[in-house]
Amino acid sequence: MKRIKCVVAYDGTFFNGFQIQPKGRTVQAEIEGGLQKLHKGQEIKIFASGRTDALVHAKGQVIHFDTPLQIQMERWQNALQTVLPSDISVLDLCEVEPKFHARFDVISKEYRYYVQKGRKLDVFMRNFRCFYPYQLSVEKMRQAANQVVGTHDFTSFSSAKTDKEDKVRTIYSFDIVENSDVIEFKIVGDGFLRNMVRILVGTILEVGRGKRDPNEISQIIKSNDRETAGPTAPGQGLFLWKVNYDN
Amino acid sequence: MKRIKCVVAYDGTFFNGFQIQPKGRTVQAEIEGGLQKLHKGQEIKIFASGRTDALVHAKGQVIHFDTPLQIQMERWQNALQTVLPSDISVLDLCEVEPKFHARFDVISKEYRYYVQKGRKLDVFMRNFRCFYPYQLSVEKMRQAANQVVGTHDFTSFSSAKTDKEDKVRTIYSFDIVENSDVIEFKIVGDGFLRNMVRILVGTILEVGRGKRDPNEISQIIKSNDRETAGPTAPGQGLFLWKVNYDN
Repeated sequence: MKRIKCVVAYDGTFFNGFQIQPKGRTVQAEIEGGLQKLHKGQEIKIFASGRTDALVHAKGQVIHFDTPLQIQMERWQNALQTVLPSDISVLDLCEVEPKFHARFDVISKEYRYYVQKGRKLDVFMRNFRCFYPYQLSVEKMRQAANQVVGTHDFTSFSSAKTDKEDKVRTIYSFDIVENSDVIEFKIVGDGFLRNMVRILVGTILEVGRGKRDPNEISQIIKSNDRETAGPTAPGQGLFLWKVNYDN
Repeated sequence: MKRIKCVVAYDGTFFNGFQIQPKGRTVQAEIEGGLQKLHKGQEIKIFASGRTDALVHAKGQVIHFDTPLQIQMERWQNALQTVLPSDISVLDLCEVEPKFHARFDVISKEYRYYVQKGRKLDVFMRNFRCFYPYQLSVEKMRQAANQVVGTHDFTSFSSAKTDKEDKVRTIYSFDIVENSDVIEFKIVGDGFLRNMVRILVGTILEVGRGKRDPNEISQIIKSNDRETAGPTAPGQGLFLWKVNYDN
């Protein structure tokens, strides 16, 4: 039995999220279905660094699974790709120690969120950006984002549906980069609660357009009340960018 | 009655081409359907600079239509956008002289074709690029492209299905730009036959990977025989980029 670590990218547009659901197409079901084909009908369970919601994309999601197959390691990536649909891409694949775990061993994760600038959404980017047709102050958004960095209880910035008891997380960096047609939010932390990045972005966009003061962010964090934060930004702007492990 | 000229972009992925077909979703049917809604059921016919095939995209397709509506010109663009699906975007709209014609008045057109470099197709670009997993010599492809520039009979580079009698066209420029992960073909001409850009690219890619000599292109043009040219490159890499008029 070998344990395999695998980095996958996926276009979340036509998935009802990562995790297997009673209804809708999921990334997990597609990958497990592909692995089952490779294993001649045997069920192979995969474990991811975490789930992603409907419409959310991944540039570097990490999964692991165990396999009895005797495929040469250099052939594994192609073998797996051939049994996957075109909206999932196998970026990297390697054998790891049997004690490696894609979720429990995560050191940090990076998410990115893309907001289209200006009056019109680029039709080719409509599934990969959030359209927010307001004038935005990047300086004020940066002031707001700076208050997120550090170790905090993020109850205010998590969905009521979250199943985690401990809501304290450490954000290592939260940068906002302005490009010609898009604003990019880059956030790195030791972990993220359900909808956390999207609620952070949704709230900071309200700061950017002048509906909130940048200093409100600290107060929202202290309040431990989801109602004090802004709306959840749409899923299609979000990318799970990179998952880091100690190796 | 006003004549309206309109620039639209569309993601061709989920269209069976521009022109209305018995089967499948088309750009023309979507726009005419939207206009019919705006005109309370009255049928409005649109005229485009030319058709595009299934999967082919447009960054700047131009259409015209006549309307009796008394909408203020600055409101027209939004009014039309609200009755169109999210994969068609109205980029510009203005009133023109009643004698303007989107097809007959074309001075020149630019198409671009995108080929993904390297071993893996970027999952987020899979509908907007052609995947061609061979080492390509850009220098040789440029030598081949240079032979296309000028006035030639392009019978060899057109689909047998073409309905045009006169197959002489003038290509003003044909540039190949190499970027980090993509090769961009930019071609400008006074007109293009059915599948012409895709057969040119399909043939030049065979030059790029060493299957053909760059100088074959002139011989293929002279032969007036479609069989001498290479395959038709896939539709999803092609963009109708810009249509130029005298104005």
